[in-house]
Amino acid sequence: MKLSKMHLKTLREVPNEAEIASHILLVRTGMIKKLVSGVYGFMPLGWRSIRKIEEIIRQEMDAKGAQEIHMSAVQPAELWMESGRWFKYGPELWRLKDRNGRDFCLGPTHEEIFTDIVRNDVNSYRQLPLNLYQIQTKYRDEARPRFGLMRSREFIMKDSYSFDKTYEDLDKSYDDMYDAYEKVFTRCGLTFRPVEADTGAIGGSNSHEFTALSEVGESEIAYCEKCNMAATTEKALCVDAAASKAAELPLEEVHTPGTKTIEEVSAFLNMDQTQTLKALLFVTYDDNGNDNGYVAAFVRGDRELNMIKLVNALNIPEHAIGFADEAKMSEATGCVGGFTGPVGLHDCKIVVDSEIPGLKNLCAGACKADYHLKNVNYGRDYSADIVADIKMLKAGDPCPVCGAPVKHARGIEVGQVFKLGTKYSESMGAYYKDENQKDQLIVMGCYGIGVTRTLAAIVEQHHDENGIIWPVSVAPYHVIITLLSPEDEIQARIAEDIYRQLASAGVEVLLDDRKERPGVKFKDADLIGIPVRITVGRGAAEGKVEYKLRRESDKEEISPEEAIAKAITIINEEK
Amino acid sequence: MKLSKMHLKTLREVPNEAEIASHILLVRTGMIKKLVSGVYGFMPLGWRSIRKIEEIIRQEMDAKGAQEIHMSAVQPAELWMESGRWFKYGPELWRLKDRNGRDFCLGPTHEEIFTDIVRNDVNSYRQLPLNLYQIQTKYRDEARPRFGLMRSREFIMKDSYSFDKTYEDLDKSYDDMYDAYEKVFTRCGLTFRPVEADTGAIGGSNSHEFTALSEVGESEIAYCEKCNMAATTEKALCVDAAASKAAELPLEEVHTPGTKTIEEVSAFLNMDQTQTLKALLFVTYDDNGNDNGYVAAFVRGDRELNMIKLVNALNIPEHAIGFADEAKMSEATGCVGGFTGPVGLHDCKIVVDSEIPGLKNLCAGACKADYHLKNVNYGRDYSADIVADIKMLKAGDPCPVCGAPVKHARGIEVGQVFKLGTKYSESMGAYYKDENQKDQLIVMGCYGIGVTRTLAAIVEQHHDENGIIWPVSVAPYHVIITLLSPEDEIQARIAEDIYRQLASAGVEVLLDDRKERPGVKFKDADLIGIPVRITVGRGAAEGKVEYKLRRESDKEEISPEEAIAKAITIINEEK
Repeated sequence: MKLSKMHLKTLREVPNEAEIASHILLVRTGMIKKLVSGVYGFMPLGWRSIRKIEEIIRQEMDAKGAQEIHMSAVQPAELWMESGRWFKYGPELWRLKDRNGRDFCLGPTHEEIFTDIVRNDVNSYRQLPLNLYQIQTKYRDEARPRFGLMRSREFIMKDSYSFDKTYEDLDKSYDDMYDAYEKVFTRCGLTFRPVEADTGAIGGSNSHEFTALSEVGESEIAYCEKCNMAATTEKALCVDAAASKAAELPLEEVHTPGTKTIEEVSAFLNMDQTQTLKALLFVTYDDNGNDNGYVAAFVRGDRELNMIKLVNALNIPEHAIGFADEAKMSEATGCVGGFTGPVGLHDCKIVVDSEIPGLKNLCAGACKADYHLKNVNYGRDYSADIVADIKMLKAGDPCPVCGAPVKHARGIEVGQVFKLGTKYSESMGAYYKDENQKDQLIVMGCYGIGVTRTLAAIVEQHHDENGIIWPVSVAPYHVIITLLSPEDEIQARIAEDIYRQLASAGVEVLLDDRKERPGVKFKDADLIGIPVRITVGRGAAEGKVEYKLRRESDKEEISPEEAIAKAITIINEEK
Repeated sequence: MKLSKMHLKTLREVPNEAEIASHILLVRTGMIKKLVSGVYGFMPLGWRSIRKIEEIIRQEMDAKGAQEIHMSAVQPAELWMESGRWFKYGPELWRLKDRNGRDFCLGPTHEEIFTDIVRNDVNSYRQLPLNLYQIQTKYRDEARPRFGLMRSREFIMKDSYSFDKTYEDLDKSYDDMYDAYEKVFTRCGLTFRPVEADTGAIGGSNSHEFTALSEVGESEIAYCEKCNMAATTEKALCVDAAASKAAELPLEEVHTPGTKTIEEVSAFLNMDQTQTLKALLFVTYDDNGNDNGYVAAFVRGDRELNMIKLVNALNIPEHAIGFADEAKMSEATGCVGGFTGPVGLHDCKIVVDSEIPGLKNLCAGACKADYHLKNVNYGRDYSADIVADIKMLKAGDPCPVCGAPVKHARGIEVGQVFKLGTKYSESMGAYYKDENQKDQLIVMGCYGIGVTRTLAAIVEQHHDENGIIWPVSVAPYHVIITLLSPEDEIQARIAEDIYRQLASAGVEVLLDDRKERPGVKFKDADLIGIPVRITVGRGAAEGKVEYKLRRESDKEEISPEEAIAKAITIINEEK
């Protein structure tokens, strides 16, 4: 393609709201275009890269025997009611009505639809296993869309669903997809780590998240360098220290005026934070969004509460809980902002972290303004409705597998695989007849790749201060010929000649024949990040062009033939 | 692909609601699957054919220098308000709100979005011409979805938009697209006719519809075998006969008890229907759906009213008019059901067909039960608010171009091209700076292909009583190897060998290795319509297989090598 004919609008300025490199660069290169908050369109270069990612996914899915289909984005509420998710899913589910008032949603995921297909089509064990996938536009009505393609409301996903006779067969399907995902992300040029993850709104027993490592990622992962443990911090189990053998001291009320935080009270009492109890106060909601009871969660003072573990312990969806209104909760439960402890609380579900019962003589709020209690002991002074691991695994904590200190990293979730088991086949009645003509539940798995988010993750990992540095496999074009003086006959002829030869060798090539200054052309070539640049300038008269890889700083003055040969070689090796 | 591994669920029964061949066959082959009324999913075979149609479109669009992009399906109301279509579009526009109550629609078309892109990105005449396209899911909340993919609520379209400096350049862009469309539909194996069409809700000055000829099509076209005239009957102009020179006779009231229809009154009075005046009564609606005045339309008794011409004459959108409630209208305007004529009507817009003023002494209702008026004459006895061509061009009427009698045919609208001119650039402010730095309006065109509807049209034109007969270019697979006895070692080996050789020659091949009776396999092969069938049966032991084209009844007993060679030849010629 010639740039003079292409719709390319690069921006020199950084868009106001863009905070991270991928967002800034995808907008500055004109590859994506914001329509409204969280809704983007893809312009020619961006769409080419998306289509390449899709093709890589397609090849790896097909290689595993998965079959591509394409289901509707608009889904009837009835199916979501059958699975029970119509009410459970929360406000991210973008709901709408048709002209007859019938309820629909714009699918954020397709478990219901695929289960419906299979319960209708599959009768016999001979039709299993089956893996169906689609690459399709999905919707999530995010409260705070941000970071460009990272968290948008309309996005492209590959989602696939496996259907097996047994859990052993599911393991095989799951491993196949795990393997396919490793290949996909490797081919996309990503540095990533598969980590154990929570199953969230999708449900099921096991899950791995594929996390592209990046400081700007919203996933926090914990991993161990000694063993293979790697999990999202939401999921990572914590090892509780051995129970303290200390004698239980008598409860003692102390005046601690104005010490509303753990930092303040521990400083005031000259006490380590590990000897304190931190309270977090929540209200839960029913399906209609009305208050449905209070929850007080307690973790050791130096710990962070893990919300995912908390909602799992409570067995409620994430959106069914929020921070409590202090005044209202105080009236109902006796809690006192900044001075809440488990002793004296009433009419409230108490959830206590699993390490707390083993700790002795903690300092907690006295449920009385400006007072704390010292020597609070679980069992003697209070009990809990639920005792569970509800804390975050910190960097340096012992690895739950081998005990070595864990490390933390951040990353972007680009894919996730789930063992659903029979969650959906049970609620929606998806059976097959086994060899003995007996009905058996179909065992399911589901597997997602965020296609548009993968694009963003690639840019996060492949850029410098001048722009994107596309891996060849997903570059919108392979080679850009920067023709410095289009009006110079020799330069124009040589550039055109290189262009034709590369194109006929199957190389995807751009020719920058615009009437722009060389500086503008070099800046644009760097910004849009085409892997190979061949510059045709004054040297053309002496049969020389400049050959440069975007990812390297070296340049070479070589003949057009050599440049063509080098470009073809590297493209064929890496595409 | 081996059929034993493929998700294929064919149906022997005809689905209840399916009335036309494409709907019946696409469902029976399991290529499409209904989710709810007007919403379909595509199963493996169906999706492969869709992707082939998309690829043909892509190639022909790219060949014209059009550039593929991908915009969001969800569109903010604000842009539709700018163009004025938010209120004009009617209930087919599927509207929704996000969690913050902001209005959106699911785009049925993308004029607003593309105009918005271009007004932001294009400054200079040097950036034009430009043609951007996308292949994308579109929505129309149809009142009566039917005929499977023909009229569905979620469907796939290719839509493209051209942006030019001048109307002359638009002509060139339009001709390019017209040419690309002819190539696309030809490659898809369709028999079609481009016809002049009304511009409808899209607007603009000129339009052609690409109509795949089919008795079940919803488009009616008029064409002339003598000249090149071809138009939808909605659009086709009528030639009015020369004005009658007859003397105007005196108005005469006649008692015509019970003669409510033109047939009845003309029989009762022993009068030709061409000597009568037919009344059609309507009510119009404002943007809020409230009654907005009555309309009485009059055409010659033997004519059919053309609703599109009527709404164009009234300059209102199609959904802003409906049949009147007779009792209410009677009270307001003096009309009398079955006996309404233009004389005596009041408080009502009167629209008279253009040929009426030239006709003399017509018989019309007297606005009085059981009475008609004879010798009603325009000008003398009544006048109209609007005189315009509002009649349907009948088969046999003179061609508006050459005067020869026109013919009628039915067809399926698979594509439409529009010269929009400056309709959207004016309302949305899309300008470019010309050579003298002066702002000029961008001149636009838009061009659509119904991808999913094209699939249905192909099936309508390519099937027999046993199933679909895919043209090679859009067949989900090229060849099916029907292995009659998979447990027979020789048969299995030969079938496998043919399968491998064809696949390595780039032929897309299915191997029916299922444990099914031969009858089932033959029936399925015919039903899903794979162009070439190679049957491996008992003859295999003597080195013979059966070679058969789906579209022909002849079979040949030949060697596997010959069968492979013949298959490769025909696929390469026709794919």
